[in-house]
Amino acid sequence: VLHSFRMERSEYSDDNCSVAGTLQLVGERWSLLILREAFLGVKRFDQLQRNLGIARNILADRLQRLVGAGIVERKRYQERPERFEYRLTQKGLDLYPTLVALMQWGDRHLAGKQGAPVVLEHKACGAETHPHFVCSECGEPIGARDVRAKVGPGALARTA
Amino acid sequence: VLHSFRMERSEYSDDNCSVAGTLQLVGERWSLLILREAFLGVKRFDQLQRNLGIARNILADRLQRLVGAGIVERKRYQERPERFEYRLTQKGLDLYPTLVALMQWGDRHLAGKQGAPVVLEHKACGAETHPHFVCSECGEPIGARDVRAKVGPGALARTA
Repeated sequence: VLHSFRMERSEYSDDNCSVAGTLQLVGERWSLLILREAFLGVKRFDQLQRNLGIARNILADRLQRLVGAGIVERKRYQERPERFEYRLTQKGLDLYPTLVALMQWGDRHLAGKQGAPVVLEHKACGAETHPHFVCSECGEPIGARDVRAKVGPGALARTA
Repeated sequence: VLHSFRMERSEYSDDNCSVAGTLQLVGERWSLLILREAFLGVKRFDQLQRNLGIARNILADRLQRLVGAGIVERKRYQERPERFEYRLTQKGLDLYPTLVALMQWGDRHLAGKQGAPVVLEHKACGAETHPHFVCSECGEPIGARDVRAKVGPGALARTA
């Protein structure tokens, strides 16, 4: 459903803004860094703790929040003694574009002359890849100036 | 430059991680919400303040940080009395994929049955678009399981 009028600020509010909602769940430095580790394959509490140099109680709290949000799941991988690991759910895997976008911006604007600290290889084609957004309909590249934000059905339902 | 070995945690640290660096600058809820407003075309202090329901001193602080980071610039748009507005620089516009990625995740996982509160129209083709990442080399869609993170030249330079 595409509405033909421009978006006005009065048409939405933070309680149904998808950006604000996402930030509410993961928009905190430690949470996003935990997710970065998870995407790099780190699953265990102790390794997360070492890699991030984070206090154990803060790590436990952030993991619990991510589990509560269904972004990470806690799975037992050993019985005696019981040991658990943290794995990204599909909901968590869906945060991948966010992490890639943050990384690419840092690569472009913060990395030194030497270049990016981490590069991505596309498994299928074997090339070093720099993913970019394209339009789902016509396939052309999408940048900030190529789109127009409009009131969506969720906003109308709320304000109706 | 693509290196042929897998990345190990010891090869990088937060002081040269592009994700951590980006979060250092914009990874704070208010900053990202200010950027959301900027992408929606909001440029003036008072309107930002109203839209976000943010304390004036906090808004002033966050704007100053964004200006200091070169993400937003402060431009005079009126002489008497002097009035200023805040505009995204190119560096700021480059954060667009981050905002779109956050929005899409929220649309998928948080929006109610009614659908997304905001939709994007691709100006060029006129369709409602759901941008997705594709490989810069082969053009195929890129998801979390399609890539492999590797040590980049920036990491090597630092640890050498």
